[in-house]
Amino acid sequence: MSNKLTGIGASNGISIAKVYILDEQPIKISKEPTKNVDSELSIITSSIEKAKTDLENLQVIAKEKLGEEKAAIFEAHASILEDPAMAEEFTSLVKENNYNAAQAIKEVADKYIAMFEAMEDDYFKERAADIKDVTERLIRYVLNMPVADLATIAEEVIIVAEDLTPSQTAQLNPKFVKGFACNIGGRTSHAAIMARSLEIPAVLGLKTILHDVREGDVLALNGETGDVEINPSNKTDWENLAKNFAEEKAELQKLKDQPTLTKDGFDGFVLEGNIGSPKDVEAVLENGGEAVGLFRSEFLYMDNDHFPTEEEQFVSYKKVVEEMNGKLTVIRTLDIGGDKKLSYFQFPEEMNPFLGYRAIRFTLDRKDIFRDQIRALLRASAFGPVGIMFPMIATVDEFLAAKQFTLDCKAELEKEGHKIGDDLEIGMMVEIPAAAVNAENFAKHADFFSVGTNDLIQYTMAADRMSENVTYLYQPYNPSILRLLKMTIDGAHKHGKWAGMCGEMAGEPDAIPLLMGLGLDAYSMSATSILKARSIMSKLTLKETQDLANKALECETTDQVLKLVKDLMKDK
Amino acid sequence: MSNKLTGIGASNGISIAKVYILDEQPIKISKEPTKNVDSELSIITSSIEKAKTDLENLQVIAKEKLGEEKAAIFEAHASILEDPAMAEEFTSLVKENNYNAAQAIKEVADKYIAMFEAMEDDYFKERAADIKDVTERLIRYVLNMPVADLATIAEEVIIVAEDLTPSQTAQLNPKFVKGFACNIGGRTSHAAIMARSLEIPAVLGLKTILHDVREGDVLALNGETGDVEINPSNKTDWENLAKNFAEEKAELQKLKDQPTLTKDGFDGFVLEGNIGSPKDVEAVLENGGEAVGLFRSEFLYMDNDHFPTEEEQFVSYKKVVEEMNGKLTVIRTLDIGGDKKLSYFQFPEEMNPFLGYRAIRFTLDRKDIFRDQIRALLRASAFGPVGIMFPMIATVDEFLAAKQFTLDCKAELEKEGHKIGDDLEIGMMVEIPAAAVNAENFAKHADFFSVGTNDLIQYTMAADRMSENVTYLYQPYNPSILRLLKMTIDGAHKHGKWAGMCGEMAGEPDAIPLLMGLGLDAYSMSATSILKARSIMSKLTLKETQDLANKALECETTDQVLKLVKDLMKDK
Repeated sequence: MSNKLTGIGASNGISIAKVYILDEQPIKISKEPTKNVDSELSIITSSIEKAKTDLENLQVIAKEKLGEEKAAIFEAHASILEDPAMAEEFTSLVKENNYNAAQAIKEVADKYIAMFEAMEDDYFKERAADIKDVTERLIRYVLNMPVADLATIAEEVIIVAEDLTPSQTAQLNPKFVKGFACNIGGRTSHAAIMARSLEIPAVLGLKTILHDVREGDVLALNGETGDVEINPSNKTDWENLAKNFAEEKAELQKLKDQPTLTKDGFDGFVLEGNIGSPKDVEAVLENGGEAVGLFRSEFLYMDNDHFPTEEEQFVSYKKVVEEMNGKLTVIRTLDIGGDKKLSYFQFPEEMNPFLGYRAIRFTLDRKDIFRDQIRALLRASAFGPVGIMFPMIATVDEFLAAKQFTLDCKAELEKEGHKIGDDLEIGMMVEIPAAAVNAENFAKHADFFSVGTNDLIQYTMAADRMSENVTYLYQPYNPSILRLLKMTIDGAHKHGKWAGMCGEMAGEPDAIPLLMGLGLDAYSMSATSILKARSIMSKLTLKETQDLANKALECETTDQVLKLVKDLMKDK
Repeated sequence: MSNKLTGIGASNGISIAKVYILDEQPIKISKEPTKNVDSELSIITSSIEKAKTDLENLQVIAKEKLGEEKAAIFEAHASILEDPAMAEEFTSLVKENNYNAAQAIKEVADKYIAMFEAMEDDYFKERAADIKDVTERLIRYVLNMPVADLATIAEEVIIVAEDLTPSQTAQLNPKFVKGFACNIGGRTSHAAIMARSLEIPAVLGLKTILHDVREGDVLALNGETGDVEINPSNKTDWENLAKNFAEEKAELQKLKDQPTLTKDGFDGFVLEGNIGSPKDVEAVLENGGEAVGLFRSEFLYMDNDHFPTEEEQFVSYKKVVEEMNGKLTVIRTLDIGGDKKLSYFQFPEEMNPFLGYRAIRFTLDRKDIFRDQIRALLRASAFGPVGIMFPMIATVDEFLAAKQFTLDCKAELEKEGHKIGDDLEIGMMVEIPAAAVNAENFAKHADFFSVGTNDLIQYTMAADRMSENVTYLYQPYNPSILRLLKMTIDGAHKHGKWAGMCGEMAGEPDAIPLLMGLGLDAYSMSATSILKARSIMSKLTLKETQDLANKALECETTDQVLKLVKDLMKDK
């Protein structure tokens, strides 16, 4: 066994501390049929009550330590326990199939987890993790197993675990917990998101770490590179790394209220945040975001049991627009269908849902549903600058139809006496190759573009990145992708429009120099990536990024492109 | 009820004749459980025997009237009846579930039909039709129902039916059967393919025709436009149409042995045929094809119960290459996976099979399987000019890996003493947007490109054309597609390579002028489209097609492009 491992860097920072091994007894569920249905049912009911009380307490602790926004996760967990449909399913398995309580909960949970895990969107993957977390807690109560209490940790440690559930993460006191290292998880897992918000360095996906450490070991970890060392041979190296990290972090904080400038003083690039609900605005502003480049409107539809009304939507959009206080908010219209389902609406079964009936294809087909959203968006535009953005546009005809529909709604609202903002922009996602290739024609009609890199890459490479046999084709730095970005940006500029990006790529340190060189105007990313992006931009001149981009466009392969970036950045 | 209907023109030609109404009694299957298992089983066995005898007779008739190639369909049908797995399934439903004979056959048939119909490829859709045809025949025998005998028709008629099965079509005597009109079916249905090969005009997908006609009616139909008129008011108009058609057909026949020339004498365009098995070569040569632009190698894998050996493949490839007698044969390596399955190999389940593990992604991963094919192809190249073509290439890395593997196999074969052809070319399909966008870099390494329009359009528009909600996005004439074609063709020419097309678009009369203007070198299509293509080319100067293409590239929408084409062609 080597004492060095590499996992996935999930939350930046360097830590060195004693290990705290969280080796929870695995849950074992018997398949013994129950002999007493009533007693099993009452065990389920009392365990649900116990879990709910616990979650309420955790919510209070989390609110203090993590703020309201992150504490909301426990409300979500409690709401899972309150879901009558799920409780009904537990009961029916016990009553009709004589399942024991734990077995019933597990079977129902596994069904929902599999369903959500099969979905593309991070939002749903998180739901799967939520259900796993809360139902495991429930099963532990049912089986009278201990539930780990991490809130009692009172010395500096790095937690080593198979995985950390959101509820476990929320109990961590950053004063003592200096990091964590888990066998499973990735950058978008809940543990990672929580770690970043607690600013605890974390390395996930280490596979064997729980097996490799012993009580009393010291662990050093680098949450950026994913490097981990057990009982490090050269502590000074690690301490220097930690010092550098702290210095860099302090440097980044200084950029919070600074303008976004290149080394040679160009001020045309805008750094923006992606948000999923109004509560995420705070983080964008705290991290120096200059706009919301993508507000996903799906949460209004998915955390719901009916299509949200115009009024319900208006309240949410207005809240964000007001909080942005004069800065632009770009709101994407409903991007649902395909793999993203609604409990209250039946989408058609399709062989290839990614190539199917979704997003604008659905809303243009169902104007009744679209109308409520468009009207709500238009009304919100009275409270600050708003961009309405249509997802999955493939043809100019589609864009024109969606735009005309918006203008019709606008005329209707004005007739009703509503005020519509003067700064309203109507734009589109560029996430289908057809839109990128013909961008200059779309730019005659659209006020702006925003590139959705995840989908654009998937379609351009004809590779579903969720299909593990072809993930190697998910290549953001492939010259073909760069060429499509260039067509998109040049197309926009030809008609005096701006081009942004709201996919993952916009916040990647390796991508930013290329995107600058290609002339991308707006960069919308996770709030926590904004300051780092500002710092990278400040170290580069326009000219050197343009030279980089021109060379990259001529490359044949992803590796060649990445080498160019690394060569440019190595002395920055 | 209007006496004019429009359906899908499925086989060109004009006909006017009395109707022959083929209104077969629909099959009704009881769900009554059988009381005598043994008797049901013996009914199945005797019906299978009867059906086989019938199919043998049909094969003899068909061979006389349609030639060996088309008669092979009945061999395929007989082989379905001989499939022990299917018979086993009939038996087990009767034995274990007490199904009656007809019910058992229907259930098994429906399962296979649904499976094949869900697949993208026309080849499989045809298999579904085959199974339907042969099992319906079987059920009619089981239920003692009459089976229509179209071979006895002895006066000039147009057959009106719900649908025509391949076995019914094969009985038709073109001397008397002047056309047919069906409620269902489309251009790629079996009935359509048979009609074209019998040169009987046909209109399919008429929905209500069987209901609309009465015994004694006269029908006029236009197999190109899909127009049908019951008891036509102006017979002279129809007779003139028929005369023009006959003249045009005679004109086309004259082009059979002519070179492919534009109006101004440019001789750089090559007209080629697509084939699915060695038996299709004959039609390509008969229709004046100058090469085989696409030989789909899948038939070797799918009409089989094991991966075909090097030797088995070599025999087929060599046969085609020899028959082509010095003309180029481009053979595509195995394009399987995704929706195309093999009975003897388990592909992974994927959420979006079109974006998954298929074609070159599969063969590069399974070099053991790839090796047999590449060696067989290389050995066949000793017998005439061969192009080896890799499907679904997305990155330069993939192409280089496949090419290097081929060169390694070549070295190995030469060491073993095999001769390899000097004219061997190694090229690739351009059917993924990434390949089109970066074509100029691929062209440094590939000897040729061949555009697969079906897939290229699907990925570029992010729309599965099999998903009925988004079929409107399957737009071959969208300016985005034309731009990708231009990048592909220009990319090839920049490095002195040739660019072809083997998708459906290559043979479409509206597409040919655009493709000429874009500079496409090779046009590979259904054999029966070749002469028409040659005729279209002979009516156009290079300059006017180039002007057309340049204008089309600047268009915003499909409709604008098509209008340009119609305007140019209306006086030709």
